[in-house]
Amino acid sequence: MTVVVVGSVAFDTIRTPAGEAREIVGGSAAHFALAASWFAPVRIVAVVGEDFGAEHMNVFHGRRIDTEGIERAQGRTFRWHGEYAGDMNTARTLETQLNVFEHFRPQVPPSYRDSPFVFLGNIQPSLQLEVRRQMRSTRLVALDTMNFWIERTPKELEQALAEVDAAFLNDDEARQLTGTHNLTKAVRSVRALGPRIVVIKRGEHGVSLYTDNSIFTAPGYPVEDVRDPTGAGDSFAGGFMGYLASSGDLSEANLRRATVFGSVIASFTVEDFGLRRGLRLTHEEISARFREFKHLSHFDIQ
Amino acid sequence: MTVVVVGSVAFDTIRTPAGEAREIVGGSAAHFALAASWFAPVRIVAVVGEDFGAEHMNVFHGRRIDTEGIERAQGRTFRWHGEYAGDMNTARTLETQLNVFEHFRPQVPPSYRDSPFVFLGNIQPSLQLEVRRQMRSTRLVALDTMNFWIERTPKELEQALAEVDAAFLNDDEARQLTGTHNLTKAVRSVRALGPRIVVIKRGEHGVSLYTDNSIFTAPGYPVEDVRDPTGAGDSFAGGFMGYLASSGDLSEANLRRATVFGSVIASFTVEDFGLRRGLRLTHEEISARFREFKHLSHFDIQ
Repeated sequence: MTVVVVGSVAFDTIRTPAGEAREIVGGSAAHFALAASWFAPVRIVAVVGEDFGAEHMNVFHGRRIDTEGIERAQGRTFRWHGEYAGDMNTARTLETQLNVFEHFRPQVPPSYRDSPFVFLGNIQPSLQLEVRRQMRSTRLVALDTMNFWIERTPKELEQALAEVDAAFLNDDEARQLTGTHNLTKAVRSVRALGPRIVVIKRGEHGVSLYTDNSIFTAPGYPVEDVRDPTGAGDSFAGGFMGYLASSGDLSEANLRRATVFGSVIASFTVEDFGLRRGLRLTHEEISARFREFKHLSHFDIQ
Repeated sequence: MTVVVVGSVAFDTIRTPAGEAREIVGGSAAHFALAASWFAPVRIVAVVGEDFGAEHMNVFHGRRIDTEGIERAQGRTFRWHGEYAGDMNTARTLETQLNVFEHFRPQVPPSYRDSPFVFLGNIQPSLQLEVRRQMRSTRLVALDTMNFWIERTPKELEQALAEVDAAFLNDDEARQLTGTHNLTKAVRSVRALGPRIVVIKRGEHGVSLYTDNSIFTAPGYPVEDVRDPTGAGDSFAGGFMGYLASSGDLSEANLRRATVFGSVIASFTVEDFGLRRGLRLTHEEISARFREFKHLSHFDIQ
């Protein structure tokens, strides 16, 4: 089954203790698409500027990534300039140039509208909702967001949450969104807003999956050389949604495996800048790390 | 097999968003002993003052806790007054009265010296070392510490670490001790100082066990009503050491189970103030929560 993603395609300039990369292709839709394409065909809805050439488009080609929905607008591509220090848990934004993203009104191509899996990447909640409403007969619609929208457009965000099946949030975002310190209670409040499935990202500490009657926690993978955390969340979501789309199986057992595959892909993403690690990843590496996650969290009852 | 613990026995006054408790029995040795006693016989080395009466000693009686090594000194018992706010991840100390603890020189009673399991609770590293050297033919000696000793007595702490088999640290302490942001690298540096086994406590996010060739992560239990986090670390250590002492089995599989049993006990401890929850715990509750931990972290490869 196919996955549609709406989000940003950007030029990122990133500085971390491990080095610097300038004007590399990034953005939530790019990270998501590359990650999901390991498991299922992906269709991107995004906007780029006139400066986004064929050589940049190349990151999507030769993979199961449909770029028909990438609109080319007049002007420059969205740019983000950020830096990480210390434990690299949070990015400091040095500059954001919205450029063509400022007036982005996502249009889902008719050929995309029957995709059963939809990921609404971290953009304005009202645009997420517009995309969601352009889709027909979905099986799983998931949304990502950030503190920026929680603070500035809480009403729109609640409306978007009311129409999705799953939400990806980090622990602080869940607390901020619900005004609740206790994470378990915060998740209950998020679920009351709409999404049946809530995934809480705990940074280096792993990820928890909350469903109707169950909580599952996948550990963080002990990456020794985190070079660039950018895109970890979106590649988690890509691995998660892509894996689910590969079979269409939404059972608890499969949601748990999807949570681990998302963690696997994210653990690779942070090993290099931008999309670099994802672009040279192999299916063998993915399978091997999946088994490592099993070893990392397994214990025998007796 | 028996476990010896050296640490504090204290009167704690604790305020949290859930309420307040005044002058209740606490301290690292008390929390550890109660936790470990669910699995194995425990022997305490500590000091109390003249104000520590029979009614306070009662928390240890009727359990497998030997109190011969609790010295009664002239003066008042150690007192700690602390408060937690918000997400309750860190305590704010309002007052510390060392009292009889100030001149504490722990003496291990001769009857304790053949205990194969030893826990050096969070006290001055030079005292931890003195206790360690009073023990004969140990199988597993573990140490807990805190930022206070990392900052003030780093040399003594390194000496103590060189003579133990296991260290319990939280993630920030491991980073501070080694000057390394990356947790996996930090743990490697801690292991190079001596302990073959390192347990990293991640607060609400769980615990990781690092051994020679293996990392295991137990999830955090989703406690909905954290009333008082005091003693969580020491009761984790108590459950961990007590479970190991119950069989003496130090295999990787058993160390992993011990990590989960430690997490189980700690998850109960925080449900009420001080020792209260531990005092009314049952073996049935412990077993049931152990199985919940399995469900919380289990996924099928396919």
